[in-house]
Amino acid sequence: MNKRLEDLTEWVKENNYTYAFIQSKYNVFYLSNFKSEPHERLLGLVIFPDKEPFLICPNMEKVSAKASGWKGEIVGYNDSDNVWELFQNAVKQRVLEVEMIAIEKEVLSYSRSEQLLSLFPNAKFVSADHKLRTLRMIKDEMEISILREAAKLADFGVEVGVHEIGKGKNEMEIIATIEYELKKKGIREMSFSTMVLSGEKSAEPHGHPGLKGISSGDFVLFDLGVVYEGYCSDITRTVAYQTVTDKQKFIYDTVLQAQTLSLSISKPGTRIGDIDKIARDYINEAGYGDYFTHRIGHGLGIEVHEFPSMSENNDDYLYSGMVYTIEPGIYVPEIGGVRIEDDVLITEEGSECLTTFPKNLQIIK
Amino acid sequence: MNKRLEDLTEWVKENNYTYAFIQSKYNVFYLSNFKSEPHERLLGLVIFPDKEPFLICPNMEKVSAKASGWKGEIVGYNDSDNVWELFQNAVKQRVLEVEMIAIEKEVLSYSRSEQLLSLFPNAKFVSADHKLRTLRMIKDEMEISILREAAKLADFGVEVGVHEIGKGKNEMEIIATIEYELKKKGIREMSFSTMVLSGEKSAEPHGHPGLKGISSGDFVLFDLGVVYEGYCSDITRTVAYQTVTDKQKFIYDTVLQAQTLSLSISKPGTRIGDIDKIARDYINEAGYGDYFTHRIGHGLGIEVHEFPSMSENNDDYLYSGMVYTIEPGIYVPEIGGVRIEDDVLITEEGSECLTTFPKNLQIIK
Repeated sequence: MNKRLEDLTEWVKENNYTYAFIQSKYNVFYLSNFKSEPHERLLGLVIFPDKEPFLICPNMEKVSAKASGWKGEIVGYNDSDNVWELFQNAVKQRVLEVEMIAIEKEVLSYSRSEQLLSLFPNAKFVSADHKLRTLRMIKDEMEISILREAAKLADFGVEVGVHEIGKGKNEMEIIATIEYELKKKGIREMSFSTMVLSGEKSAEPHGHPGLKGISSGDFVLFDLGVVYEGYCSDITRTVAYQTVTDKQKFIYDTVLQAQTLSLSISKPGTRIGDIDKIARDYINEAGYGDYFTHRIGHGLGIEVHEFPSMSENNDDYLYSGMVYTIEPGIYVPEIGGVRIEDDVLITEEGSECLTTFPKNLQIIK
Repeated sequence: MNKRLEDLTEWVKENNYTYAFIQSKYNVFYLSNFKSEPHERLLGLVIFPDKEPFLICPNMEKVSAKASGWKGEIVGYNDSDNVWELFQNAVKQRVLEVEMIAIEKEVLSYSRSEQLLSLFPNAKFVSADHKLRTLRMIKDEMEISILREAAKLADFGVEVGVHEIGKGKNEMEIIATIEYELKKKGIREMSFSTMVLSGEKSAEPHGHPGLKGISSGDFVLFDLGVVYEGYCSDITRTVAYQTVTDKQKFIYDTVLQAQTLSLSISKPGTRIGDIDKIARDYINEAGYGDYFTHRIGHGLGIEVHEFPSMSENNDDYLYSGMVYTIEPGIYVPEIGGVRIEDDVLITEEGSECLTTFPKNLQIIK
């Protein structure tokens, strides 16, 4: 049994839960190293205080599950099987009375909770979310080395994209080239749909790229990341095309300075909300507070958004081993938007940016 | 108010529900035309029997929501706001007593259900899933024309991929080229991670492509689809590289004949389970029943897997306007796998394959 599964088993035991039922693909991967996309099918890991855990998955996934290193029992099923009956039987082979089930309250669907209650009518639910989140929030050495590599690949993606601007490509052509070059390096999946937004569109934090060409004077905003060995990176860089006004330059410098301030206080013991506050205060003072419409960042790992949430009202503290983004932005409808985002690792002494693409304002000719 | 939202409003009214709370990104898109990726943030549509519905979303998404055509109220929020308080206020402006809330039981998280109960302690939950599923299962003309285009783009993807095999490319290089060519046509998102699997790996229905080259005698299996204007396509084709054994040929012909049989009975009034059964019986008789390890297919639309589930035990019937996949497969560990998949539209008279890439066994030289 691996260390993570041991930790969770220990927690189930300490709290006297009958079992923990883990069924989000991310948590199953975290605990078992088995990465799978179950769609609407059931994929789950069931963990008991002192019985062997079991994995439940479609029969056609069994080979992959074993190849991922899962050595415990696998309860496999075909699409025509009654999967919940198989689930119930596997539980009943291990325990007589089901009293407390730890579930992922934040992702388990309401109907699956009803299903569990119909199988185990006396069960009460407790939340496994906080425990899993806490485990996942502090990355181990293996995870850090994977995240470092994922960040390097994100740097490379931006480099490819910036290089394409000068060739007169449009937004989608630039995205196509970025992802092509990454796929050739073996990257199958991006952390999210790659964004290349130019001109006024760069002012929409979640805008949609299109077949529009880049115009002189546009900001061009890149937001992208890769999934590498199951872990995500996430970088944003903004460059200007051909010319830039003083106002654009001021906006850029304001965002960069705000980001630098947040980075400067990123170290163990800092209150998380202060990472947001120091950047927000600076942007407010520069007169652009109304145009910084989102939190400063988010935790990063198996999911591109995970804990902690880097928002102003988060009273938790930073610990060594956390990885999160710092991504202030200013979005002015007629002028365009600037966002600068790095992936940051908290170390024993301070912090380290995993993404390293240059941040001085580049004007692409 | 569009027709779909009208239908759902009518349903809420008929059943005397206080409101319907729709918060899956797919159903929100279906009902409002607003496509958004909220991650862990709240995105929701709240629909009352006789009050104006409202959309709740992050402030930074408001521009996109309006651009998508949403004309009703938008309750926007920043990351630092208490979003559930805003939600509660917007409900309380419309109704005095909250008694019955229709929720998406199959996707609403257990913790959001607890949240709703804490705001509206007297509320009972009913399921909106069946209603939404039924609405979404029958495609309108606009949806069909989008799905037809999505299928054409999937055909194109396979064409690009097959063409690359002859150039001595490996699996990831082939995927890179397929997606590059699709992106240049404006496709931002694939329905799922494109699969190109060769040799023994083709025997894993959900295997992982790699940097491995294609060898003579390999089956090469392509499984891919695009998201076009919010709708998915999904095609599988299998070709052979350079040579093929009699056994491989027999397996291929068996799958193709099984698929042809399922297609031949695809028309209004057919029991859905029979679509699976006719193919399964044929494959069983050919002696490969143990190697056809999944259902024959799945509904297709805004999600790549949606209702109906095309499995043997489905006693529902086909109706005009349904779109689903037919994808029998035989996966023999040492030899490799063959799957042939089309997207099928049920018409008034029978059916139409939306994907049209040739299905005769191609041996790529």
